[in-house]
Amino acid sequence: MPKKEKKRLQVVISDEQDALLTRLAYELSSPEQLVSKSEVVRLAIEKLADGLGEGQEKARLKELLRKLEAEE
Amino acid sequence: MPKKEKKRLQVVISDEQDALLTRLAYELSSPEQLVSKSEVVRLAIEKLADGLGEGQEKARLKELLRKLEAEE
Repeated sequence: MPKKEKKRLQVVISDEQDALLTRLAYELSSPEQLVSKSEVVRLAIEKLADGLGEGQEKARLKELLRKLEAEE
Repeated sequence: MPKKEKKRLQVVISDEQDALLTRLAYELSSPEQLVSKSEVVRLAIEKLADGLGEGQEKARLKELLRKLEAEE
Protein backbone atom coordinates (compact mmCIF):
# COMPACT_ATOMS: atom_id res chain seq x y z
CA MET A 1 0.00 0.00 0.00
CA PRO A 2 1.46 3.39 -0.90
CA LYS A 3 2.21 5.61 2.07
CA LYS A 4 1.41 8.80 0.18
CA GLU A 5 -1.08 10.19 -2.26
CA LYS A 6 0.31 10.25 -5.80
CA LYS A 7 -0.45 12.36 -8.81
CA ARG A 8 0.25 11.71 -12.42
CA LEU A 9 1.76 14.65 -14.23
CA GLN A 10 2.23 14.87 -17.97
CA VAL A 11 4.94 17.15 -19.31
CA VAL A 12 5.99 17.90 -22.84
CA ILE A 13 9.75 18.18 -23.15
CA SER A 14 12.11 18.75 -26.04
CA ASP A 15 14.40 16.06 -27.41
CA GLU A 16 17.32 17.90 -25.83
CA GLN A 17 15.64 17.90 -22.42
CA ASP A 18 14.88 14.20 -22.79
CA ALA A 19 18.56 13.58 -23.55
CA LEU A 20 19.51 15.69 -20.52
CA LEU A 21 17.22 13.60 -18.32
CA THR A 22 18.75 10.39 -19.61
CA ARG A 23 22.23 11.70 -18.93
CA LEU A 24 21.27 12.88 -15.44
CA ALA A 25 19.65 9.52 -14.63
CA TYR A 26 22.80 7.77 -15.76
CA GLU A 27 25.08 10.08 -13.78
CA LEU A 28 23.06 9.56 -10.60
CA SER A 29 22.90 5.79 -11.10
CA SER A 30 25.44 3.38 -9.70
CA PRO A 31 26.02 -0.37 -10.07
CA GLU A 32 23.91 -0.78 -6.92
CA GLN A 33 21.10 1.53 -7.90
CA LEU A 34 19.47 2.52 -11.16
CA VAL A 35 17.82 5.92 -11.16
CA SER A 36 14.86 6.45 -13.50
CA LYS A 37 14.02 9.59 -15.47
CA SER A 38 10.90 9.96 -13.37
CA GLU A 39 13.04 10.00 -10.21
CA VAL A 40 15.27 12.65 -11.75
CA VAL A 41 12.22 14.84 -12.40
CA ARG A 42 11.08 14.47 -8.78
CA LEU A 43 14.58 15.33 -7.64
CA ALA A 44 14.67 18.34 -9.96
CA ILE A 45 11.41 19.69 -8.52
CA GLU A 46 12.69 19.41 -4.93
CA LYS A 47 15.99 20.98 -5.90
CA LEU A 48 14.31 23.93 -7.62
CA ALA A 49 12.09 24.51 -4.60
CA ASP A 50 15.15 24.47 -2.30
CA GLY A 51 16.91 27.02 -4.46
CA LEU A 52 14.00 29.44 -4.57
CA GLY A 53 14.50 30.20 -0.90
CA GLU A 54 17.61 32.14 -1.89
CA GLY A 55 17.29 35.80 -2.79
CA GLN A 56 18.61 36.29 -6.31
CA GLU A 57 17.56 32.82 -7.44
CA LYS A 58 14.09 33.93 -8.52
CA ALA A 59 15.43 36.55 -10.93
CA ARG A 60 17.88 34.03 -12.36
CA LEU A 61 15.14 31.45 -12.85
CA LYS A 62 12.90 33.96 -14.61
CA GLU A 63 15.75 34.72 -16.96
CA LEU A 64 16.33 31.02 -17.69
CA LEU A 65 12.60 30.65 -18.28
CA ARG A 66 12.63 33.42 -20.88
CA LYS A 67 15.62 31.77 -22.55
CA LEU A 68 13.80 28.42 -22.71
CA GLU A 69 10.70 30.05 -24.17
CA ALA A 70 12.74 31.78 -26.83
CA GLU A 71 14.15 28.41 -27.87
CA GLU A 72 10.75 26.73 -28.14
CA MET B 1 4.81 24.40 -36.85
CA PRO B 2 6.96 23.44 -33.88
CA LYS B 3 10.63 24.23 -34.27
CA LYS B 4 11.72 21.27 -32.17
CA GLU B 5 10.91 17.61 -31.64
CA LYS B 6 8.83 17.10 -28.52
CA LYS B 7 8.41 14.17 -26.19
CA ARG B 8 5.66 13.42 -23.76
CA LEU B 9 6.90 12.36 -20.36
CA GLN B 10 4.72 10.95 -17.64
CA VAL B 11 5.86 11.32 -14.03
CA VAL B 12 4.27 10.21 -10.82
CA ILE B 13 4.69 12.79 -8.09
CA SER B 14 3.51 13.03 -4.50
CA ASP B 15 0.83 15.45 -3.36
CA GLU B 16 3.56 17.47 -1.65
CA GLN B 17 5.57 17.71 -4.87
CA ASP B 18 2.45 18.75 -6.75
CA ALA B 19 1.87 21.49 -4.19
CA LEU B 20 5.53 22.54 -4.56
CA LEU B 21 5.11 22.77 -8.32
CA THR B 22 2.01 24.90 -7.95
CA ARG B 23 3.81 27.22 -5.55
CA LEU B 24 6.85 27.46 -7.85
CA ALA B 25 4.64 28.20 -10.86
CA TYR B 26 2.92 30.94 -8.90
CA GLU B 27 6.21 32.43 -7.66
CA LEU B 28 7.62 32.55 -11.19
CA SER B 29 4.43 34.02 -12.62
CA SER B 30 3.77 37.71 -12.94
CA PRO B 31 0.74 39.78 -13.97
CA GLU B 32 2.23 39.79 -17.48
CA GLN B 33 3.04 36.10 -17.67
CA LEU B 34 1.52 32.96 -16.22
CA VAL B 35 3.94 30.06 -15.79
CA SER B 36 2.52 26.53 -16.01
CA LYS B 37 3.57 23.53 -13.92
CA SER B 38 4.86 21.91 -17.09
CA GLU B 39 7.14 24.91 -17.68
CA VAL B 40 8.40 24.65 -14.12
CA VAL B 41 9.33 21.00 -14.70
CA ARG B 42 11.25 21.91 -17.87
CA LEU B 43 13.02 24.65 -15.96
CA ALA B 44 13.82 22.25 -13.10
CA ILE B 45 15.42 19.76 -15.53
CA GLU B 46 17.66 22.46 -17.07
CA LYS B 47 18.57 23.80 -13.65
CA LEU B 48 19.53 20.34 -12.35
CA ALA B 49 21.68 19.70 -15.41
CA ASP B 50 23.44 23.05 -14.92
CA GLY B 51 24.18 22.21 -11.30
CA LEU B 52 25.64 18.80 -12.06
CA GLY B 53 28.61 20.42 -13.68
CA GLU B 54 29.80 21.43 -10.22
CA GLY B 55 31.96 19.02 -8.26
CA GLN B 56 30.21 18.25 -4.98
CA GLU B 57 26.76 18.62 -6.46
CA LYS B 58 26.51 14.97 -7.53
CA ALA B 59 27.11 13.68 -4.00
CA ARG B 60 24.54 16.13 -2.63
CA LEU B 61 21.97 15.07 -5.24
CA LYS B 62 22.49 11.39 -4.44
CA GLU B 63 21.88 12.15 -0.80
CA LEU B 64 18.67 14.06 -1.61
CA LEU B 65 17.60 11.13 -3.80
CA ARG B 66 18.02 8.69 -0.92
CA LYS B 67 16.02 11.00 1.31
CA LEU B 68 13.18 11.17 -1.23
CA GLU B 69 13.14 7.40 -1.58
CA ALA B 70 12.96 6.94 2.16
CA GLU B 71 9.89 9.19 2.23
CA GLU B 72 8.08 7.32 -0.52
